[in-house]
Amino acid sequence: MSRRRCRAPSTRAGSWGTRWRTPTGPPSPELDALLHGYGHEPIHVTGDDPVQIHRALAEAFDRALDTIAGIQRAARDSDGSGIGSGTGDEAGTGDEAGPGDGGAADGRPRWPVIVLRTPKGWTGPAEVDGKPVAGTWRAHQVPLSGVRDNPEHLRQLEAWLRSYRPEELFDAEGRPTADVLACVPEGAERLGATPHANGGLLTRTLPIPSLDNFAVPVDKPGATMHEPTRVLGGLLEQVMRDTADRRDFRLVGPDETASNRLDAVYDASGKAWQAQVLQVDEHLDRHGRTMEVLSEHLCQGWLEGYLLTGRHGLFSCYEAFVHIVDSMVNQHIKWLKTSRSLHWRAPIPSLNYLLTSHVWRQDHNGFSHQDPGFVDHVLNKSIEVVRIYLPPDANTLLSVTDHVLRTRDYVNVVVAGKQPCYDWLSMDQARVHCARGAGTWDWAGTENGDREPDVVLACAGDVPTQEVLAAAQLLRRHLPELAVRVVNVVDMTRLLPAADHPHGMSDFEYDGLFTTDKPVIFAYHGYPWLIHRLAYNRAGHDNLHVRGYKEMGTTTTPFDMVVQNDLDRYRLVMDVIDRVPGLAVRATGVRQRMADVRTRHHAWIREHGTDLPEVAEWSWTG
Amino acid sequence: MSRRRCRAPSTRAGSWGTRWRTPTGPPSPELDALLHGYGHEPIHVTGDDPVQIHRALAEAFDRALDTIAGIQRAARDSDGSGIGSGTGDEAGTGDEAGPGDGGAADGRPRWPVIVLRTPKGWTGPAEVDGKPVAGTWRAHQVPLSGVRDNPEHLRQLEAWLRSYRPEELFDAEGRPTADVLACVPEGAERLGATPHANGGLLTRTLPIPSLDNFAVPVDKPGATMHEPTRVLGGLLEQVMRDTADRRDFRLVGPDETASNRLDAVYDASGKAWQAQVLQVDEHLDRHGRTMEVLSEHLCQGWLEGYLLTGRHGLFSCYEAFVHIVDSMVNQHIKWLKTSRSLHWRAPIPSLNYLLTSHVWRQDHNGFSHQDPGFVDHVLNKSIEVVRIYLPPDANTLLSVTDHVLRTRDYVNVVVAGKQPCYDWLSMDQARVHCARGAGTWDWAGTENGDREPDVVLACAGDVPTQEVLAAAQLLRRHLPELAVRVVNVVDMTRLLPAADHPHGMSDFEYDGLFTTDKPVIFAYHGYPWLIHRLAYNRAGHDNLHVRGYKEMGTTTTPFDMVVQNDLDRYRLVMDVIDRVPGLAVRATGVRQRMADVRTRHHAWIREHGTDLPEVAEWSWTG
Repeated sequence: MSRRRCRAPSTRAGSWGTRWRTPTGPPSPELDALLHGYGHEPIHVTGDDPVQIHRALAEAFDRALDTIAGIQRAARDSDGSGIGSGTGDEAGTGDEAGPGDGGAADGRPRWPVIVLRTPKGWTGPAEVDGKPVAGTWRAHQVPLSGVRDNPEHLRQLEAWLRSYRPEELFDAEGRPTADVLACVPEGAERLGATPHANGGLLTRTLPIPSLDNFAVPVDKPGATMHEPTRVLGGLLEQVMRDTADRRDFRLVGPDETASNRLDAVYDASGKAWQAQVLQVDEHLDRHGRTMEVLSEHLCQGWLEGYLLTGRHGLFSCYEAFVHIVDSMVNQHIKWLKTSRSLHWRAPIPSLNYLLTSHVWRQDHNGFSHQDPGFVDHVLNKSIEVVRIYLPPDANTLLSVTDHVLRTRDYVNVVVAGKQPCYDWLSMDQARVHCARGAGTWDWAGTENGDREPDVVLACAGDVPTQEVLAAAQLLRRHLPELAVRVVNVVDMTRLLPAADHPHGMSDFEYDGLFTTDKPVIFAYHGYPWLIHRLAYNRAGHDNLHVRGYKEMGTTTTPFDMVVQNDLDRYRLVMDVIDRVPGLAVRATGVRQRMADVRTRHHAWIREHGTDLPEVAEWSWTG
Repeated sequence: MSRRRCRAPSTRAGSWGTRWRTPTGPPSPELDALLHGYGHEPIHVTGDDPVQIHRALAEAFDRALDTIAGIQRAARDSDGSGIGSGTGDEAGTGDEAGPGDGGAADGRPRWPVIVLRTPKGWTGPAEVDGKPVAGTWRAHQVPLSGVRDNPEHLRQLEAWLRSYRPEELFDAEGRPTADVLACVPEGAERLGATPHANGGLLTRTLPIPSLDNFAVPVDKPGATMHEPTRVLGGLLEQVMRDTADRRDFRLVGPDETASNRLDAVYDASGKAWQAQVLQVDEHLDRHGRTMEVLSEHLCQGWLEGYLLTGRHGLFSCYEAFVHIVDSMVNQHIKWLKTSRSLHWRAPIPSLNYLLTSHVWRQDHNGFSHQDPGFVDHVLNKSIEVVRIYLPPDANTLLSVTDHVLRTRDYVNVVVAGKQPCYDWLSMDQARVHCARGAGTWDWAGTENGDREPDVVLACAGDVPTQEVLAAAQLLRRHLPELAVRVVNVVDMTRLLPAADHPHGMSDFEYDGLFTTDKPVIFAYHGYPWLIHRLAYNRAGHDNLHVRGYKEMGTTTTPFDMVVQNDLDRYRLVMDVIDRVPGLAVRATGVRQRMADVRTRHHAWIREHGTDLPEVAEWSWTG
């Protein structure tokens, strides 16, 4: 790639050299210490003379780029691990670090960082209304605020703008002069055309193997259990393997890959690590594409930057702590929304979150680790960019992940458990269910098709799905004449009106699925009012009764978590009895039995420290 | 305060000295550089011998506390600024820094930091299943996971627990021995009883002057304009002044106190600053209680810690960027919820946010600075701890702030503008309106009391209030026969059912205020679906139509922001015409005129860069 050199600017400064306050003193030793502490080698560019700074900054960039190139060369020479093409998509990601000049004791290189210090408000007015401005804190906002009413301000503004000598930059028609145009790069070197700034141009379709190779076999619902994220780990391992040469897929996470049971990926690509390796360490890899650091901020920053270069990734995170990056994802969503309206911007791979170790299973960690609100947060933003998935089991998690890894320009949030969970759907069933996003599970309900159901039990999320199925089974036994429909929702935006989201259901479909006049008891993974916020415009909204997490619970048994939040099977049966017309009086005995189990549960867990046998050993029998 | 010395523990380690892997190598120079970069002097305590570590850590604490005391002494000796009592509530807040040993070049002291490095999993099993555990990453979670089924694991667990020699610690009845009890402090030195850990015991009522001294005079609504936060600045200045001796009130913010127009406080207490002072600097104060740093994380951390000591504070922040601390406020709310259930925990001053520079007035900053979602975020959490206020003008902001500064154990979020805003209510009117939290503004509506209104125009927030009043004025002119009720909501939790929040309105009151069957057009400051989430259980919910921010807009005129989000007066009038039965056909001419103004607005701002004169010069004429 040839670098075309522009002429250095003429000394336009005039009296600038004396006008600007010199940045005070030498570079701060504390700042250098801080940057060294972060593993960097600072390069300082300091001054107030534009020509000198221009040259010094160019030299600093040359030096920094040479240092980076040297580090990369050393890394490639020291082990021939198949990286070598030196394509742009590897530069500067830090994954090829090796011993370089000025490296740390353990052989890590010190990456350069440029510290540029020029006067604040450089080229602006030195004084306004008798007070110093350029080079001081006063230059931070609008330096000349009175140009409409204050002739002196207007005069200063004119002098400031004229100091750029526009007559040398533009011709009589206001066009840039030939000198200026000679500095404009051409073709792919233009800022808006270089693939370095428009990474979607470089995006290649991710190779995703057939899900059938990783699916768990399901002959009948609820007969087996798997850890959904562990099953997903198999798929991700293969994606890692199939991108070994292309190196365009990474898994990032706050030191939780193994905790989130995705550790199969280590067999294909270890944890990126350039420092000392101890004998007990495992899965550390100088070229690893599993990126772990206990900082959600760094994870988010790494992945955002990586996606902007056109490559693919997945951020796996404890559900509660992804709020740490709320503010960062806001800006990425704003960027995507705006970017999608610019025809020349090529779509980039979506920002994919896998939220696990979720609110319902914090047996060890407790209240501080319970927060399902990230879904609410992102749904507030530009909603056309956002997708939310709550797969209820292993195969649906495979299907959803397969989908989100193929999408572009979205923020996809997938919430799934890592604890053993019943397998409800075969891979084929999972595929159609996830494509549909929501649907009835005929095998779980007791409709016979000759009339509308008496009640709809809806669920979204793995734990709510299990509770709804257990409730359906209790209703089947205790109130066999009741026509119960079970609806599972995977794609939360299906609940939105069709006009509000590309996935939104038409009213025809929604009214058919949920009815317009029957009670709907909805067991949701997160804050219950989110369902009302999505469905408030629907005809049947007044009949919608939602159970979900309401900031109850602590370090306790899994079932006690749902009891404390009124999401448990017994409470759901009581809700049905309370809301189906005519049932309250007739089924009061059943209701009472349900309430009694909750009471026995309370005493039992205190005595035994485990859940009631009928809960712990529950399984779906149809 | 006497320190009672316990006997040093006997050498309980047995073979420990050889069992634990020594933390490898000397302290990392990079870590020291990082800590130096942050202005600290590290004190290292490293080892694997419990007795040695116990003594070294005690010495490290003594050294650190002596250093802190020395820094404080030097600061007090070097200027006699009235700080001197050395009460606990000043210790360690860093506001009395002066030259100490090992200080920085500009005379700042280096505060000590203790770096304790012991083996991970210390005292735990050295090996499990033939793999090293103690001193390695494997010690991070449950080191012996198979104690129920694996006899060897159970044996190791028993050996581990017995290594603590419980027979020396407990007597035959399981009571701690006299030796152990001799180490337990008494009275206020107990962890749960010391005011250092139960700061509410030290809380004093904040002196808040009469609001009448700061209120803006309002003879009739909408005749004058003020910047609400600037008016509030006067009150805060006086609070600063009145706490000069007690020093128990601080204002924190990410370098935005002046930008948020609260700079009057500087006259009472400047910005806390210990480093070099340049000639151009203003309002820097070694003892200042205005805490500024461009890190929302630091601001939040400072204020949380300060409140936990029983003192008072206010966090003023750009509305959009307070999301940076979403995860931190989560944990504070969880702490407050739990703390309130412990009878021995004294209430502490509330965590108060003033969110300003809000979504509707980002003329310079644009899309990246627009996010009103913090309210939604905190309303998801333990709601009994949360209060949300949207004062519509200067006097209501005074009343709300006066209230929140008096409360305990809450998280109060106040959203208010800094731009000039019409004054609607006198101080007296503001007081009763804010105490009520929501109410009709008779003077703004056109009800005559002999029948129910045809439509309710509701508003919450300063900009929506102005748009609703402008819409009411348009309706008065164009559809004089229409009975319009104007409702303003200051306290958002009033909209919740009484059962869900201490401030929630009874259905009687809500139905009276909003009607059960008339259209309610609600102009809300933030995301519109929040209102549905609060009010979905109300009888009139199906008639509720909410306008608010929907992620539209960029760097544009103030009125264009509301037009782009369909919150403008003309759109609100169209909403009324669309939703009041019988009006659509009859008032089609009015509707058309409203749509036409929006079209003219679009062309006008492109030509003139300012809002339409009829908008820019609009005022309330009744």
